[in-house]
Amino acid sequence: MKKLAIGIDIGGTNTKIGIVDQDGNVLKNTSVLTQEDNDTFEDFLALVMKTIDAMVSTLSKDFEIIGIGIGAPNGNYYNGTIEQAANLKWKGILEVVKAFDDYYSFPSVLTNDANAAAIGEAVFGGAKGINDFLVVTLGTGLGSGFVANGKLIYGHDGFAGELGHMNAIPDGRHCGCGKKGCLETYASATGLQRTTAELLTASLTDSLLRGLTPELLTSKKIFEAADMNDPIALEAFEITGKILGRGLADAVAITSPEAIFLFGGLVKAGKYILDPTRKYFEESLMPVFRNKIIILPSELMDKNVAILGGSALAWREFDA
Amino acid sequence: MKKLAIGIDIGGTNTKIGIVDQDGNVLKNTSVLTQEDNDTFEDFLALVMKTIDAMVSTLSKDFEIIGIGIGAPNGNYYNGTIEQAANLKWKGILEVVKAFDDYYSFPSVLTNDANAAAIGEAVFGGAKGINDFLVVTLGTGLGSGFVANGKLIYGHDGFAGELGHMNAIPDGRHCGCGKKGCLETYASATGLQRTTAELLTASLTDSLLRGLTPELLTSKKIFEAADMNDPIALEAFEITGKILGRGLADAVAITSPEAIFLFGGLVKAGKYILDPTRKYFEESLMPVFRNKIIILPSELMDKNVAILGGSALAWREFDA
Repeated sequence: MKKLAIGIDIGGTNTKIGIVDQDGNVLKNTSVLTQEDNDTFEDFLALVMKTIDAMVSTLSKDFEIIGIGIGAPNGNYYNGTIEQAANLKWKGILEVVKAFDDYYSFPSVLTNDANAAAIGEAVFGGAKGINDFLVVTLGTGLGSGFVANGKLIYGHDGFAGELGHMNAIPDGRHCGCGKKGCLETYASATGLQRTTAELLTASLTDSLLRGLTPELLTSKKIFEAADMNDPIALEAFEITGKILGRGLADAVAITSPEAIFLFGGLVKAGKYILDPTRKYFEESLMPVFRNKIIILPSELMDKNVAILGGSALAWREFDA
Repeated sequence: MKKLAIGIDIGGTNTKIGIVDQDGNVLKNTSVLTQEDNDTFEDFLALVMKTIDAMVSTLSKDFEIIGIGIGAPNGNYYNGTIEQAANLKWKGILEVVKAFDDYYSFPSVLTNDANAAAIGEAVFGGAKGINDFLVVTLGTGLGSGFVANGKLIYGHDGFAGELGHMNAIPDGRHCGCGKKGCLETYASATGLQRTTAELLTASLTDSLLRGLTPELLTSKKIFEAADMNDPIALEAFEITGKILGRGLADAVAITSPEAIFLFGGLVKAGKYILDPTRKYFEESLMPVFRNKIIILPSELMDKNVAILGGSALAWREFDA
């Protein structure tokens, strides 16, 4: 009998659902709109369950579902809840695992999206066999999942791995969390945009990026400008890499990983972000850590990481 | 038969050796001079072994030594070695565990001094039963030991827990490690002295601390001045606590501990260091972490932590 796991990634816009085998093959996958079609969180959960049931009913008979793994914004591993997620309209503490447990005969487990990405990297990606590593997701914000001694660091309350909210620049940019100067206000796709806008204002240098509205000044646009040797775009990547490299070096001082995997939209800029990040990372490391930690794009970058991450968590926890 | 462990703390000046029971009672203890009386590292090890043998020979017959735990500067847990310790005259990689293993029938284990303090806190101090915590030693430098999921984070190479070398102030003070702006150049007894010297130079304010040579400007002296309401001393503690509080908040963002235990000479200043540290710590935390992490002086502060830390490691590792 073939064992299968269900992986779910709950996002602000879409929720992705898939069925994954032990080798990381995504056998089935689909997505539903998270908030648009659902008034209450209970409506949303009912839609997800209906979708899973339909998906499972199309499988051949010879299988066993070992469990469900879920990645979600502000997901709390210990409680199986989503707590105060900024990008969901449903506030407070949302019971997810309990609802699935009531409905299904197989178990469910939940964590935040960056932690799910880290487990995905460990089970299906470049971190196979690595006991100490970290995954950093560079998108709208900066998420992180730390693995030490082969286990994810959840911390006392389940909220460990908030590298994006380290104090990078004293009294720096306002952050969505309410603080100022958080790492993710500089080292993320949004951070790159803010840095570019700042440079355009501060300098008189010609740039392909002048005249764009903030909405059009995307990290993809900045990447394309850098690729055409635009000085503002290149400087924006340099600054972003400098602050990111320093932040990663600070993380290394605490956990001393073997490898750091970068993931998310910003990493698609390739050398423009990786080169300055690696350079300033090495400079900012205590000498004992220099020249021995690899920074790599995630091996799941072009795969369905959302579903793989969740399902990897299920494989980790429920595969006897 | 009573089980006993041997705890050793190798310091630049003294090496402390003790015999400790399972309840943390130090039954015997003594110390030898580390470097002064010994030309080679082998001479030093021979002296330690001779001292242990003499100590053990005074025990009553009804006991069993379960093993030796050693805390040492730049101690590498994985290799059982001391590597490139700045405060020892013997350079390179020093084999410690191998030498003990060759000589004794019971096993030995080694880690760095801050990690030993963390294990000591877990086994004999305030961290009993706490799975996620960190111990920070504030002396000449800033050392740290992180425990997550109930296990010490050693990292890939055994050198995790170097919170003192996080990048606290961009392009800040020179650090012994070769970098600039490391946390320990501000948040340590030495950091407090440097801050005080800086304030004395920068201001014209009257102070009890004026006219002292750098050698006399100790953290004890600064504490005494603060206790007499000296404005420079009070400001120096405020700045030290601010930078320390922010550094601890950064550590929390990564590992989300339940408690932080502070240890070492600087903590003897009590409220003068603890109050500003706690204030700026809370301010620098991401809101999700606020008002739930306790910062406390180590419960081993007035005990023989050096010996307790090493022996706790032996109890952890060798007590079947």
